[in-house]
Amino acid sequence: MTDTFVIVGGDAAGMAAASKAKRDASDLEVVVFEKGEWVSYGACGLPYYVKGEIQSLEHLVSVTPEEFREERDIDLRTGHEVVAIDPDAKTVTAEHDGGETVQPYDSLLIATGAESVVPPIDGTDLEGVYTLGSMSDGKELREYVARARKGESLQQPDRGPACRYLEDCTGSVGVVGGGYIGIEMAEALAANGFEVNLFQRGDRVLKGFSEATSEAVADHLREQDVAVHLDTEVETLSGDERVEAVVTDDDRIEVEMVLLGTGVRPRTALAEDAGIELGETGAIETDAYRETNVPDVYAAGDCAEATHVVTGEPAYVPLALTANRHGRAVGQTVTGRPTEGGAIAGTAAVKAFDVEAARTGIIDHDEAREAGFDPISETITAKSRAGYYPDGGTVTVTLTADRDTKRVLGASLVSEYGEGAVHRSHAVVGALEEGATVFDLENYDLAYAPPFNTTWDPVLVASKVLSGKLR
Amino acid sequence: MTDTFVIVGGDAAGMAAASKAKRDASDLEVVVFEKGEWVSYGACGLPYYVKGEIQSLEHLVSVTPEEFREERDIDLRTGHEVVAIDPDAKTVTAEHDGGETVQPYDSLLIATGAESVVPPIDGTDLEGVYTLGSMSDGKELREYVARARKGESLQQPDRGPACRYLEDCTGSVGVVGGGYIGIEMAEALAANGFEVNLFQRGDRVLKGFSEATSEAVADHLREQDVAVHLDTEVETLSGDERVEAVVTDDDRIEVEMVLLGTGVRPRTALAEDAGIELGETGAIETDAYRETNVPDVYAAGDCAEATHVVTGEPAYVPLALTANRHGRAVGQTVTGRPTEGGAIAGTAAVKAFDVEAARTGIIDHDEAREAGFDPISETITAKSRAGYYPDGGTVTVTLTADRDTKRVLGASLVSEYGEGAVHRSHAVVGALEEGATVFDLENYDLAYAPPFNTTWDPVLVASKVLSGKLR
Repeated sequence: MTDTFVIVGGDAAGMAAASKAKRDASDLEVVVFEKGEWVSYGACGLPYYVKGEIQSLEHLVSVTPEEFREERDIDLRTGHEVVAIDPDAKTVTAEHDGGETVQPYDSLLIATGAESVVPPIDGTDLEGVYTLGSMSDGKELREYVARARKGESLQQPDRGPACRYLEDCTGSVGVVGGGYIGIEMAEALAANGFEVNLFQRGDRVLKGFSEATSEAVADHLREQDVAVHLDTEVETLSGDERVEAVVTDDDRIEVEMVLLGTGVRPRTALAEDAGIELGETGAIETDAYRETNVPDVYAAGDCAEATHVVTGEPAYVPLALTANRHGRAVGQTVTGRPTEGGAIAGTAAVKAFDVEAARTGIIDHDEAREAGFDPISETITAKSRAGYYPDGGTVTVTLTADRDTKRVLGASLVSEYGEGAVHRSHAVVGALEEGATVFDLENYDLAYAPPFNTTWDPVLVASKVLSGKLR
Repeated sequence: MTDTFVIVGGDAAGMAAASKAKRDASDLEVVVFEKGEWVSYGACGLPYYVKGEIQSLEHLVSVTPEEFREERDIDLRTGHEVVAIDPDAKTVTAEHDGGETVQPYDSLLIATGAESVVPPIDGTDLEGVYTLGSMSDGKELREYVARARKGESLQQPDRGPACRYLEDCTGSVGVVGGGYIGIEMAEALAANGFEVNLFQRGDRVLKGFSEATSEAVADHLREQDVAVHLDTEVETLSGDERVEAVVTDDDRIEVEMVLLGTGVRPRTALAEDAGIELGETGAIETDAYRETNVPDVYAAGDCAEATHVVTGEPAYVPLALTANRHGRAVGQTVTGRPTEGGAIAGTAAVKAFDVEAARTGIIDHDEAREAGFDPISETITAKSRAGYYPDGGTVTVTLTADRDTKRVLGASLVSEYGEGAVHRSHAVVGALEEGATVFDLENYDLAYAPPFNTTWDPVLVASKVLSGKLR
């Protein structure tokens, strides 16, 4: 039995580990160092906070520091930044107001998360340029939106079509990056009356999804009056003190604010300094139990790799469920019950205005070929409810399989919000987790009633069409 | 290659088989005998037609007889009732206006479907007593509702709370049976202003679902002012020519109409007369390819058994997807490409007013024990979207597993309509189809984003709680 379990980082992976370990072994000493003041918060909710659908940052916190300390008996030390790990002495060193603490550990979990990538272009340090990775980022953005809505925006360009929501319409803004954050923030900003310009370097938004999904989402963004600039390289953010324009390879668009949604990278410096190895993805390498190359040192969540269920290879897909799941598994392992946290399928979901989309597994053919598969994809569009049933929409499903083994490799789905693209992806995840073939998936006995689908759910329609190609 | 493929019955299984066979082998002669005039219709949509959400019976027809004949080149003979099969001569005899036809076959599919069970009580032949199995049933019911709404109802008892929908409120009606049809018709009738009395012999509605689901649905029915009479035996329907009251073991409730939703039974007389064997369930027994004990005679859809994916045993669960799937498989098999239509999981979905529910697999502990399992269930209620995200509801999940093998046996889910109980069941179907354990399911990498679930989808929460009990 471990005596002292030390955790670096107090968000999803860290606090899941702390809670699970303490619940399973109440005599274990569990110490969590968190450099900020917020712990266990739902960063995924930040766009909705900025949008104004969530009234307080506190609402994003699932368990407060006080509750962790008092109810769960976890020694949570906020405002403590771990600056060094000594694997030989089995200690960590944390800096905090008023000094430095050297804390011994028996087991250590590195859960330092990820940080927003700032692209290497000029002007990202101007005022009015934001990222959205942390609670304080969210706070700043919300304050900015509130000021702008009060008419305190610095510019008031033409009050274009994006002003349909609000009378006190604000100005033009730029969102760099067409991934989850970019799209969710486009929605949040448009809902507040901003004219949104979305800049995407590649030829489509949501590049991890299928082309059909990307197109459906981009079309919908445009319907919502978001100006979607594809194949557009942002070269500079220009301005004096404050950002004034996004300069691209072929245009210059006046903006009063820019949100950088250009991805994240794992925070690994602390681990690297301690001799902990990174994998090829650049995130911390672990075994199936999330243990690193250094004995008794674990890594989980957005700073670490995970095993992809389709390829069997390490992958870096920093998402909340994996962080929770792997953190919890480590919490169990260190109490003497070794637990694998399971593989990932790279499953993700996003809402874009009135559209929802999900993706899982391997969809991209290059990626599939690299993993040794011979991929084939089919895309179908089917009604989301029985044809005769009122108010339905459509679900577009792209399903990818391996020609050789017929195994399902991945899927991408898109529908109107509420028409079930996201929850329907659950069927495909089941197939991926179990290595099922398209023929298997085609025979899944999925629930049917007219208010929920056609007799063959869109996932089954896609399977039927794809299996026809594989016979 | 078969020369003539004859099909008895022109609904889901029959027309799926005919279409697939003709598509795969255009020189095959495909003859379908249908005793009625309607083919390939969505009987599942009838409650919504009666409710008034679908304007015409034709809307329930996915492909018309003319389309089958002209576009798909299928020899579809409506108004032809097959009265005998001669397996030795390999012929069927069909009666029709103006005579009798003897049709030779090389392969034969029996797709005679199911018929409504009329309970053995007095008064079921009174006027105003309906079942809902066929298009003509639907037509009669809709006409009844229309007359009643025009004030032509024969009785106008107290205009109770069910009158909230309509000014021209109609009277009190009885629905016997708390299964899908009973519940969907309770919604359809209440929406038209009727005061609905639902009579259920057992102690809960939707007895194939979990108790938690049954309770949630019954509570909601009551919220919608349906009078739910549980543990109530209907002894007689009383009246002179027309039904006037439902007499139960302890009450007499005045009604002007009664809908019998007391289940269905397979239509097997034709098959039995031909020496085709039934299984223990009372439906036609088949092998994995839906072939009966008589060579070249197949049976699929609501008249036939299927293999349950959890028990591996024959089961009788007459539902639309199975009929389509197995019909289609037979259509492929008779063209020389033997195709198993796959097993069933007994998956079903129902909408009850503003609530949705789904079930799959084995949930009932007696049923599980009979199949050789040692069942354990857990029920959890979790938020349907992130706690901080607006407008969410809750999903209640009952998950059942085998203590010995840890295998997932089944699940029952219920939520507000639109909050995804039905589509979320897809994850559990995946687990059942692949024989996954609860530990496997707990690690499924299901899609997450705040507008769709909590970080752990309710299905995962249930898995987590249940797997905790199994360790």
